[in-house]
Amino acid sequence: MTTTQTESQVQQWTNLAQQLRVDSIRSTTAAGSGHPTSSMSAADLMAVLMNSYLRYDFDDYKNPNNDHLIFSKGHAAPLLYSMYKAAGAIGDEEMLTLRKFGSRLEGHPTPVLPWVDVATGSLGQGLPIGVGVALAGKYLDKLPYHIWVLCGDSEMAEGSIWEGFDKASHYKLDNMIAIIDVNRLGQRGETDLGWNVEAYAARARAFGWNAIIIDGHNYEEIDKAFAQAIQGNGSPTCIVAKTMKGRGVSFLENKDGWHGKPVPKDKEAQAIQELNAPARSMTFPVQKPATAQPAQEPAKKAVELPKYGQDAVATRKAYGDALKALGDANPDVVGLDGEVGNSTYAEEFAKAFPERYFEQYIAEQQLVASAVGMSVRHKVPFASTFAAFFSRAYDFIRMAAISRANIRLVGSHAGVSIGEDGPSQMALEDLSMMRTVFGSTVLYPSDPNQTAQLVAEMAEHGGIVYMRTTREKLPTLYGPEEKFSVGGSKVVRQSENDQLTVVGAGITLHEALSAYEQLKQDNILIRVIDAYSVKPIDEETLLTAAEEAGNKFITVEDHWPEGGIGDAVLSAFTQRDGRMPQVTKLAVQSMPTSGTPAQLLEEAGISAHHIVEAVKAIVKGKVDDALSTK
Amino acid sequence: MTTTQTESQVQQWTNLAQQLRVDSIRSTTAAGSGHPTSSMSAADLMAVLMNSYLRYDFDDYKNPNNDHLIFSKGHAAPLLYSMYKAAGAIGDEEMLTLRKFGSRLEGHPTPVLPWVDVATGSLGQGLPIGVGVALAGKYLDKLPYHIWVLCGDSEMAEGSIWEGFDKASHYKLDNMIAIIDVNRLGQRGETDLGWNVEAYAARARAFGWNAIIIDGHNYEEIDKAFAQAIQGNGSPTCIVAKTMKGRGVSFLENKDGWHGKPVPKDKEAQAIQELNAPARSMTFPVQKPATAQPAQEPAKKAVELPKYGQDAVATRKAYGDALKALGDANPDVVGLDGEVGNSTYAEEFAKAFPERYFEQYIAEQQLVASAVGMSVRHKVPFASTFAAFFSRAYDFIRMAAISRANIRLVGSHAGVSIGEDGPSQMALEDLSMMRTVFGSTVLYPSDPNQTAQLVAEMAEHGGIVYMRTTREKLPTLYGPEEKFSVGGSKVVRQSENDQLTVVGAGITLHEALSAYEQLKQDNILIRVIDAYSVKPIDEETLLTAAEEAGNKFITVEDHWPEGGIGDAVLSAFTQRDGRMPQVTKLAVQSMPTSGTPAQLLEEAGISAHHIVEAVKAIVKGKVDDALSTK
Repeated sequence: MTTTQTESQVQQWTNLAQQLRVDSIRSTTAAGSGHPTSSMSAADLMAVLMNSYLRYDFDDYKNPNNDHLIFSKGHAAPLLYSMYKAAGAIGDEEMLTLRKFGSRLEGHPTPVLPWVDVATGSLGQGLPIGVGVALAGKYLDKLPYHIWVLCGDSEMAEGSIWEGFDKASHYKLDNMIAIIDVNRLGQRGETDLGWNVEAYAARARAFGWNAIIIDGHNYEEIDKAFAQAIQGNGSPTCIVAKTMKGRGVSFLENKDGWHGKPVPKDKEAQAIQELNAPARSMTFPVQKPATAQPAQEPAKKAVELPKYGQDAVATRKAYGDALKALGDANPDVVGLDGEVGNSTYAEEFAKAFPERYFEQYIAEQQLVASAVGMSVRHKVPFASTFAAFFSRAYDFIRMAAISRANIRLVGSHAGVSIGEDGPSQMALEDLSMMRTVFGSTVLYPSDPNQTAQLVAEMAEHGGIVYMRTTREKLPTLYGPEEKFSVGGSKVVRQSENDQLTVVGAGITLHEALSAYEQLKQDNILIRVIDAYSVKPIDEETLLTAAEEAGNKFITVEDHWPEGGIGDAVLSAFTQRDGRMPQVTKLAVQSMPTSGTPAQLLEEAGISAHHIVEAVKAIVKGKVDDALSTK
Repeated sequence: MTTTQTESQVQQWTNLAQQLRVDSIRSTTAAGSGHPTSSMSAADLMAVLMNSYLRYDFDDYKNPNNDHLIFSKGHAAPLLYSMYKAAGAIGDEEMLTLRKFGSRLEGHPTPVLPWVDVATGSLGQGLPIGVGVALAGKYLDKLPYHIWVLCGDSEMAEGSIWEGFDKASHYKLDNMIAIIDVNRLGQRGETDLGWNVEAYAARARAFGWNAIIIDGHNYEEIDKAFAQAIQGNGSPTCIVAKTMKGRGVSFLENKDGWHGKPVPKDKEAQAIQELNAPARSMTFPVQKPATAQPAQEPAKKAVELPKYGQDAVATRKAYGDALKALGDANPDVVGLDGEVGNSTYAEEFAKAFPERYFEQYIAEQQLVASAVGMSVRHKVPFASTFAAFFSRAYDFIRMAAISRANIRLVGSHAGVSIGEDGPSQMALEDLSMMRTVFGSTVLYPSDPNQTAQLVAEMAEHGGIVYMRTTREKLPTLYGPEEKFSVGGSKVVRQSENDQLTVVGAGITLHEALSAYEQLKQDNILIRVIDAYSVKPIDEETLLTAAEEAGNKFITVEDHWPEGGIGDAVLSAFTQRDGRMPQVTKLAVQSMPTSGTPAQLLEEAGISAHHIVEAVKAIVKGKVDDALSTK
């Protein structure tokens, strides 16, 4: 059954909206959990949108001209899935598998469904990610698609929303429309602002958006607002819609206590009856998108990476050089930074490719969100800031993994070796944080030629890929022809008489090499491994080292003891039958202060001197004594 | 030398401001790094504040009536330290130790200095923490002190600022004044909004604040604005001050390229001469605070914890019960939650003690910031939300450790066992994240009586203390009289013939117990340890188990493989001379979906069934085979 031209437009919207409500109830009641009432408040808004404004080819989800519809209020997933059914993309039977094991229809939307751009469900993320998609649409694809974001009112309390609002107006993203479903009721009662729609509109306007206040259940007002929103006058538009949670069913509508609760089976029939729309499967075709082509870019060519000789070069500088080289070779590479591009060296890319660089200012959540949005549009985003400040965006990174996003994050100024700025600027938890992300890759180069090669690898690598760079200039260790790859390592010192293995990366590798020289004076030989790929760690090389060098390791890292290189090395030996090696971790064990890099490495117990002491203690079998000297 | 009454007020402000500028230059030039120009823009503002408005007893930093001055723009530390010198709190000699190893004057302020409430330097944090202090001042201490927060303009791009603005107006914090130093220049050029002071004021007003736009170098305007701000008309006040970076020195003033750079030694004399204020050490006494007493609270009494019998009770419910009991015993206990109090069970406290419960809505950065602010005022804050959403506030948690804050965070809905809601709501990285915080404590109870006792321990424990609770109801394992403590564990099954040890906590402990019963049928005996204190882990019990049960462990956790219980167990054996045990980690290895808790535990490979298989494989010496069956 398809709607006919003869039906009035309002009747068609009504039919669609009531079907969406009925299906939101049916699917959640069948699931025994979920959010029907938060779906029902936005049903009229979504009915008008999908019936009259959305341009989307459900038969061709890869069509570059498709609009993007992001449910920032991911808990309204039943509404979204009901829309997919109404559009003919899924059947009634599949819709009723909501929240069941094995179903694509998870409790909150994920890109397991081809029409879902990103996972939502952690509130306040869909809108900032939408900003990233809109940046790509307006400045890179240069296509006429729109980004529609449905926001809940509760999530407007998340600061990330305002990071997104700020960037959207700064970049004049008039291809972006946010619809705030102000149903007044949060999870446990009235929201911060209740039905104060004027307050929401004032905030949106103060952040540079057009704002239109409407009754979210009045079709004419909705229609008019959408028509106005897509005019594109240089600013994004926020539609503040006053709605009622559970709209249309007497015992749900605007009633507290129904958040996240399905209608009980014995009340389902009554609810459906009140909606005056028996369970049915009408199809409401969605308009096809434009047929424009994405902006032409020069074809991809081979990367010509920078090459470094003997001079000391900081890995952060090599990152900037390599990103610029990558940008020259691959037009899909995009640069993003949190207003510290002159520290991370992202500025090298920014200067060379200003049209593909988007300053995110001091807003790290938006920084990562924009990268995820770029990934939605198949760009190759590199986002950089101080490594410490990615902790600001950890929830976005966690969710990016659920979104199956392909993003590259580069954190500079890692560890105590940054020196005088003090602990607030020192990343000492980033390796742990990034290793504990599903499917992540964690790189930590110690040399500029190595950095350049790994940056090139990052571009080709999927998932969440993180690189930790170092502030200090460090001696060049490797020639430009040497090869490095994700999952690899380098044995930089070895002999047949190695008594144990020291594993370092980044700045601590250089300390380990200095320790090697000192120990050699005392006829103590150690193996030294550069674990530049912290995840995946090079298990094979570590197993060989264990076998050949006394089954003993010292790991040295400019990081807290938890979750970094030491634990990465240990992970190579768990899940195995064999004998575990003895592992001694040298890591930062006390709160650092200001000081010179050398003073702070020494104070933290991770300098060459401490490595020498630890090696000697172990060789003499007195590890505990060595540790107590710190 | 002290200023005299006969000097005109403006002359006094001028003298002070120029001394602050000169000292900001002198200290950073001596350090060879630091932020003189970002200090100079705010010198006039701070001169008027400290000379005429601030109420602070530098001889008695613990005076409860002291105002709180927080430099949210922590990089202006040279200005703050110059103020301490001008107030007579430190001498010129100490001021010139800025950024040197061993000095209290770190690159960014930390509470190593007694007058600093919290560490800043990660932008956008001082203001939200100030909101927490202001909540304590207005509603708990009920003292007339003010909270003055100096913000940079760049940091207004951080979403956390707007979380703070929202809560401050919601709670009518008219004891709070934010001063935005709009010097236009960020680290690498002009900020997002430049000198658009009207935009800042519009945003502040839209978020419910009074806003006053002034010339930040005009003493009369500054004076008038402060006078108006402390009137307290029911709203917080934001002073938007248009300023110039490097104000007063021709080659610095409003010049790009001087962010974070000291004046070179050879230009120092010229700069000081231009400021018309030779290096000097005038003292400008600060007004003493009021002599009011903090609001009287009923005296602390012994906690009467809830007791649980045989019924299954979720640990999150036990948390709520225990927090309420704690609140009854200790008037300093404060409850905070991110609008999910009916899920975390913080609502039990909220209902019993509404005057000590502060709803933070969906704003997790503010949730943690408010807890830190409460810690500044010596309250005992407990902040709760879904465990997954603490990842939103990781930078605040990291900084709270640098602030030496005492806060308690409780995350519910951990792991795949939450079931149908899907991965966005599942904390699978929280143990790792929280373990990797300096000096943190991480608890993960598996039983309601245990939970209650550990909640009581949390109140007495300093630093960052985290508890992970479980959504599902679980059988009660322990009697109400059994004792548990931070750093402890329970051996719940053991014999003389244990072949290996299984370590679990929370829901996986119950899976381990079920595996124990199944294995017993096959005459395989295992030791089972409840590692409810994940950090510090009970090393002694683990060492004994290694010795007595074959030096083999299986760890089982509803968490990614990195950084959780498995790594905590391994950490007991690193740093030691002895033989490492064989450790096999059972953890979540693939992206979860929706499903029932039982289905998801099974799919994740952490159910009793998988434990049985892993034990059998190891007992038969075939660990690799077992792992490949997943």
